[in-house]
This record gives sequence, C-alpha cells and structure tokens, in this order.
Amino acid sequence: MSFDQRLAERTAYCEDVLHKWMPSTEAMQGDDNCAAVVVDAMQYSVMAGGKRLRPIFLSETCSMYGGRPELAEPFMAALEMIHSYSLVHDDMPAMDNDEYRRGLKTTWVVYGEGMAVLAGDALLNYAYETALKAFDICESAEETARVVRAMKILAGNAGIYGMVGGQCADLEAEKKPQETDARTLTYIHKHKTACMIESGFVIGAVLAGAPEQDVEKLDRIAENIGIAFQIKDDILDVIGDSKELGKLTGSDEKDGKVTYVTMYGIEKASEDVKRLSEEALTLFDSLTARNDFLRELAVKLISRTK
Amino acid sequence: MSFDQRLAERTAYCEDVLHKWMPSTEAMQGDDNCAAVVVDAMQYSVMAGGKRLRPIFLSETCSMYGGRPELAEPFMAALEMIHSYSLVHDDMPAMDNDEYRRGLKTTWVVYGEGMAVLAGDALLNYAYETALKAFDICESAEETARVVRAMKILAGNAGIYGMVGGQCADLEAEKKPQETDARTLTYIHKHKTACMIESGFVIGAVLAGAPEQDVEKLDRIAENIGIAFQIKDDILDVIGDSKELGKLTGSDEKDGKVTYVTMYGIEKASEDVKRLSEEALTLFDSLTARNDFLRELAVKLISRTK
Repeated sequence: MSFDQRLAERTAYCEDVLHKWMPSTEAMQGDDNCAAVVVDAMQYSVMAGGKRLRPIFLSETCSMYGGRPELAEPFMAALEMIHSYSLVHDDMPAMDNDEYRRGLKTTWVVYGEGMAVLAGDALLNYAYETALKAFDICESAEETARVVRAMKILAGNAGIYGMVGGQCADLEAEKKPQETDARTLTYIHKHKTACMIESGFVIGAVLAGAPEQDVEKLDRIAENIGIAFQIKDDILDVIGDSKELGKLTGSDEKDGKVTYVTMYGIEKASEDVKRLSEEALTLFDSLTARNDFLRELAVKLISRTK
Repeated sequence: MSFDQRLAERTAYCEDVLHKWMPSTEAMQGDDNCAAVVVDAMQYSVMAGGKRLRPIFLSETCSMYGGRPELAEPFMAALEMIHSYSLVHDDMPAMDNDEYRRGLKTTWVVYGEGMAVLAGDALLNYAYETALKAFDICESAEETARVVRAMKILAGNAGIYGMVGGQCADLEAEKKPQETDARTLTYIHKHKTACMIESGFVIGAVLAGAPEQDVEKLDRIAENIGIAFQIKDDILDVIGDSKELGKLTGSDEKDGKVTYVTMYGIEKASEDVKRLSEEALTLFDSLTARNDFLRELAVKLISRTK
C-alpha cells in the first residue's frame, strides 16, 4: 500500500473514531434538547475537516508498541476535541478575528460569539469526559495507571504550561510586536503548537506501555516536528499559494505580526526546519519499534507546500 | 461554636485550599513567565472572593462520612476553578456583558476580552490538572476507583449534560424570550446552577465511600437547593437591595429576561422555594450521617436576603 493510501486509511479511521465519541445532536433528546444548539456548534467545529494529525500520531504510536486500539480511541477523540476548541476560541474577534478556516465560515460567524465561547468550553470539557471513559475499558491496575498518566499528559500539554500558555504569550506578542524577542517566539511555537503534537506522540506510547527511553525520544521528536511545522507555517504564509492553503496568505505581514520569518528571514527559517527535521529522523532511527509510516508522515508534514 | 463562626472557619479553609492548589504567578519562572499574564488573570478571577459554597459542600460531605480531607482538597479547588471559569466567560460582552461582579471589575474589563477567553479556558483545564493530582494521594485501588468516579461526576456536571447545557439554553432563551416556556426555565435552573451544587454534595460523599443511598439523597438535596437558590436569585433581583447584593437589581426586568418571577410571579416563586427547601430538609433527616452544619447552611442560603 502506498503512503498516501495508508494516510487516507488512517484519516478515515480517525473520522470514524471522532464520529463515535462525539456527542450527537440526536442524542440530546427530551429535556436535553434545550442544549442541542451547543452540540450542533461542537459538531460543526470538529467535523468541518482538518488533517486529524494529532489523533493519527496517537493511534500510530499506540499500535507501534502493540497497544490496544480501544484504549487509544477515547484519547484520540479527546485530543482532537481540545485542538478544535482552541481553534474555535482562537478564531473569535477578541483573538485572531478569523472568519474563515479551511474554506468554511468559522464557528463564531455561524453561531454567534456567545455560542462560540460555549462550544469551545463544551469541547474542552467533553474532551475530559471522553478521556475518562478510558477507565471503563481498563483490564488491569497497570492499564489504569497508564490511563492516569495519559490523562495527566493530555491535561498538562493543553493548559498554562502547554497550549494555553503559548496562546497567552502569542496574544501578548500581538499587542506588543516590538517587544517580542527570539525567546518569546520559541516559547510560543513550542507551547502553542508542539505541546499538542507531543500529546499525540507520547500518549499512544504510554497507553501501550512503550519503553521509557522511547517515550522520551518520541517527546523530543514531537517537539522538533511541532516547532518545524510552525516555522513552516510562517514560511508558507509568505511564499504559499492562498488557493492551495485555503486561507489568505501574507496575513501575518499585513497584521504586523512577528513570525520566525520576519525575525530571521526565509533562509534561516528554512535551514532551521531542515535541522529540526534531521534531528527528528536520527531519533526515529533509534526507536525500538518500527516506525516507517510515522517517520514518513513527519517528513511530508515538514516538507509540505500547503 | 456558633454557625457563623463555623462558616467563617470553613470559608477560610477553602481559601487556604484554593491558595495552595492554584498556580501562582511566582511559579511561572524562566520561560514560563511568557504565560504569567494568564495566570495573573486566573488568580484575579478566582481569588476575587465569593462564598466558596461548592468547595464547602464538598469538604463537608466528605468529612460527614469520615473521608480523608487530603483527597477532597484537589476536588474542592477544581470545582471552584470550574465555577470561576464559567463566571469569567459568562460576564463577557458576547454573553451577559457584565462589568462588575461582587463590586469588582470583571476579568474581561481588567485584562481584555481575548485574555478573559484564555483565562477561562486555563481555569477549566487547570481544574482537571488539579483533580488528576488526587490520584497521587490514593492509598488503595478502592480509593483510585473513587477518584475516577469523582472525576466523572465533576466533568459530567460541568459539560453539555450539566452546566454548559444550562448556559446554552440560557443564551438561547435570552435571544428568544417569548419562546421560553416553563420546561426550558426549569432546565436552565437545574443545569446552570444545580449541577455544580450537586458536584459539591456528591463528590465529597463518593470520595469518603458514603453509602449509595446517601449519595443518591445528597444528589436530590443538592438539586432542590440549587433550584431554590436560583429562584431566590430571581426573587432578589426584583425585591433585593442593590447595595446589599453588590450588583444592580432589576437588571433582569430591564433586559427583558424571562425568570421564574416574570413567569410565575413573586408569590408562587416564594412558595416553590419553601417547598423545595422542605423536601431537602426531609431528605437531610433521613441521611445516615450527622449533618447539622450542612443543613443549616442550606437553610440560610435559601432564606438569604442578599
């Protein structure tokens, strides 16, 4: 099977998992239909597409180390819900003020700002409701301990020491671009983007009981890929084709935003992507489990043109 | 010791617990100081006061059944964080548009709308980070199972089948007051207010390993108190003194909002508060554990004049 076929297969599997674990509007029966609108907005936000990278990573590292797919599923869904909630809130007028994402109207445009706040809140909370269901599938005290550890990683990477920390720094940096230094920019990339990639790479391995050394290496690979991915995003904003990307390019420059490219120039940015990528590949080589697909996916993501 | 002294003692204990479990701006050292602003906003939102009712309930039911206070503490903090996040988001212009709460400027007024979104998100996420720490304190598989159950109750009552569901219905009702019927209003009261009170009553008892019958009764008591509390809120909005309440009264009527009072009138509203209260007291009498303080607290809350 070609890489593209395998990727399509795995993406379809993630869509199935999301469909299975997301609340459905139909399930909001009886009195609960009073809350059907927020569930509709959650559905709209999550099911509107996306590459499903984080759940693919999670599922892949779990199966690489022989873990049970059933145990990974609630975490795959939870991770994508957290990713989606962050986009819903990020797109709001008070944050990035984006009206389109992946060619579709953003949640606040369709449902109003108040409902977008609630839909984001609901997704974040439902992510934990979903991950907690993994406890029901545990077959031993050891698995229960792994689920506890996986939940801590999920929550830690999503909060103030992870993604929300990065979003805070990003919001502050947008207000004071002249004060944004290299350290802050690295902090933003690492926290806003890389932490959630790390959750994907590490949670799967932890649930499968992978060797600790491998868990640690996967964490470092994910950090490299996450930062490289974000630098690539900044590069594509300058040189990419807006039609291919499905969003307006040159928007960072127009907004006077400090990015890796405005700080270091295209050349150094491209070099750093290459260096981070090579480091990741060396780490891939040293894992105890076969990792062809994950490795190729990482390479494709970093060398993408859209 | 008088009731007021006991209440003051317990409120002070909750403040200590919150102080202990909340992240501090000082802890955001090194690179993490890039995210210090959001932690500052979280602190502002949580430490700005409030009656700390939910953690008091939780601590009280835990000790009523001989549970370990250490195990209750992370849940007390988590529950108050969830309550606080809901206020932070609720106060925003896209929702209730409130500039003052408890006589202080609301979070979005002080930190801006974008940071208020993030501070709310951060609080909700940190609530789960905090509750997860309870696993580290478990001394047996039985305690671990209780913590899992407590987390599910916490998350369930906060999400679309709980508080967020109520907020969604409330937001919709505000847009279409003429379509708001009695069923919707009851749904809003039960979900927006009572669910979080239920978490307080039930989680403490579950952590302590209380008899199932008592857990169920506490759940019903909490529902009654929560709904009565909310009806009382609607009554006080009409007849209360704005200076005593620390917020403007008559605001519901001014906003054309449908409340229990606009739907049923003051008289029936007051009767229903009395009925719900009496039902709760009968249930209190049937509990296997002594409950003088909790019972008196419930009575005071429902008969409050501010």
